[in-house]
Amino acid sequence: MAHSPIRFGIIGCAEIARKVSRAILLAPNATLSAVASRSLHKAVDFAKSNGFPPEAKIYGSYESLLDDPDIDAVYMPLPTTLHLKWAVLIAQKKKHLLMEKPVALNVAEFDEIVRACEENGVQIMDGTMWMHHPRTTKWRSFYKISSALVNSCFTFFTDPDFLKNNIRVKPDLDALGAIGSVGWYAIMSILWAADYELPKTVTALRGAVLNEAGVILDCGASLQWEDGIKATFHCSFLTSLTMNITATGTHGTLHLTDFVIPYQEQEASYTASTKPGFNELVTGWEPLPSEHTVTVDMPQEVCMVREFATLVQNIKKKGAKPDMKWPTISRKTQLVLDAVKASIEKGFEPVEIVN
Amino acid sequence: MAHSPIRFGIIGCAEIARKVSRAILLAPNATLSAVASRSLHKAVDFAKSNGFPPEAKIYGSYESLLDDPDIDAVYMPLPTTLHLKWAVLIAQKKKHLLMEKPVALNVAEFDEIVRACEENGVQIMDGTMWMHHPRTTKWRSFYKISSALVNSCFTFFTDPDFLKNNIRVKPDLDALGAIGSVGWYAIMSILWAADYELPKTVTALRGAVLNEAGVILDCGASLQWEDGIKATFHCSFLTSLTMNITATGTHGTLHLTDFVIPYQEQEASYTASTKPGFNELVTGWEPLPSEHTVTVDMPQEVCMVREFATLVQNIKKKGAKPDMKWPTISRKTQLVLDAVKASIEKGFEPVEIVN
Repeated sequence: MAHSPIRFGIIGCAEIARKVSRAILLAPNATLSAVASRSLHKAVDFAKSNGFPPEAKIYGSYESLLDDPDIDAVYMPLPTTLHLKWAVLIAQKKKHLLMEKPVALNVAEFDEIVRACEENGVQIMDGTMWMHHPRTTKWRSFYKISSALVNSCFTFFTDPDFLKNNIRVKPDLDALGAIGSVGWYAIMSILWAADYELPKTVTALRGAVLNEAGVILDCGASLQWEDGIKATFHCSFLTSLTMNITATGTHGTLHLTDFVIPYQEQEASYTASTKPGFNELVTGWEPLPSEHTVTVDMPQEVCMVREFATLVQNIKKKGAKPDMKWPTISRKTQLVLDAVKASIEKGFEPVEIVN
Repeated sequence: MAHSPIRFGIIGCAEIARKVSRAILLAPNATLSAVASRSLHKAVDFAKSNGFPPEAKIYGSYESLLDDPDIDAVYMPLPTTLHLKWAVLIAQKKKHLLMEKPVALNVAEFDEIVRACEENGVQIMDGTMWMHHPRTTKWRSFYKISSALVNSCFTFFTDPDFLKNNIRVKPDLDALGAIGSVGWYAIMSILWAADYELPKTVTALRGAVLNEAGVILDCGASLQWEDGIKATFHCSFLTSLTMNITATGTHGTLHLTDFVIPYQEQEASYTASTKPGFNELVTGWEPLPSEHTVTVDMPQEVCMVREFATLVQNIKKKGAKPDMKWPTISRKTQLVLDAVKASIEKGFEPVEIVN
């Protein structure tokens, strides 16, 4: 017997909620049941322009959506500074929680959120879409040969208006700035390549750029593991859209230049070298790296919603415990992010990761 | 009237000399006139197996080749610790000098070599081949939009025998280890992307690996410029063959994954994004990056020999002064390399570049 679909409510009408609304509509085990905004008018508009079904409910406050007994799960695309308050409330209202990243202002806040979810038996997952792309799973099998040295970056160029007015540069909204907005992905990609082992030491790179309010606009860091793995990453609002990961091991190398958002929705590629070398006169490579293309049945954000909804179905219908894999990865990402911030604050001194 | 070709002698029969012998044979303005080894037998074998013309001379000592009045220029593929002695002698013998990289153990030694070349009116150039590839020139036009953030790496995996016995891990031979052997290229690629402006500060990344004799096997560094340009690089004998440069600016990004030795000799590619962004729902990129292929008339090492021989012809036949462009780039590369080494020795503290 097929399980009935998980009924989603969305609190907040951020840009990213448009993409996730579509994903909920497309996911086979999810339905779009409600949207709430502090402005009812805004919620009405959002539902209308994002294909909500006619029976979907529109709320003029987040609280009223959370009190709706016909909502199973809440997608929360709110600014980072609001995460603790609303995530805890969502859990207390026994709603499962799909939340935007970065998950919190710091790991202590995230631990409070996770505790509330555990106490209330609800699933929590963050909205890092690329982790659910079939390419990521496929490419994963390479990590054993490609995790000695990792470089990752995610940057995009913003205009003066963004740098003055966007919520992502405001200390009272998305207070983590570029490291929360884009560095999050780079850090998680490194952890992914390191099979989720935490680094021992994190050292921010000199030259970080902060705005007058102390929000990070551009930074990087060098990470070291006890067993010799090393990584660097860079994130920025100040340079052109770029998202790379290069993972190099003893016997192979992987290259992706669109790891967070693939160039195209229908398919995604990666380049892999296995035991690469040179020809006899060192005038070319033997073997040549190979390019692999993964065809996509479902966009990555749909895969994410489906995965989340499956976990919720397992809890609702099969009495399963909430899955801890995803929040564990979120927490490790936040730990490293916190360490980079701490290293910047300490004048680029190394910071030990204490789990 | 066509100038007569430049007559090359080679001192030392290193592996790399095979590739350069072929390049001298293929270059339109160069001829392979002599080879010297400390072992006459080795020189005979080398000449035989590398297509030397029958009239080429074979010498059992470097000195005798340098005394040959029918040699215009010497290609010197000797270990780094021997560069100062032999490069100065080559200049004193009024031979033009094409030398392997790294150019010296440190910039003070290189300055002595350059001074000897200047005093004797001979051309000096280092053997960094990729700088002469037509792709490099073409791609160059991008630097203004792509030089805010640069990441470069060159690594290759070596076996236990290499790590024990190869000249590149020996303090009395190629004493600069991985940073001389492969880091040289990564550093020069960063300078290239920065239009040869020197960074202000160089900080080695924690986690450098040195052997018992203190030779670098694996290291990286973070570089900063006064005007906000930033770069990182990594070099290693301990991870799989990888050679990337990603240069990101405000309005564009360049990717190369084979910048030192192109995958194939006949053509070489690069990927460029100009003003990249996302589509409306952020489910793909618009515009997509474009891949550019440069067809090659001559392998890059032949372009290098041709360029060097042209400069020598200009001196010999037109009374031109030795060109200082190439040794200036070599010197800047060595300066940065020295700073990375100094930073490692100082426990990863930042080192200011003083030109």
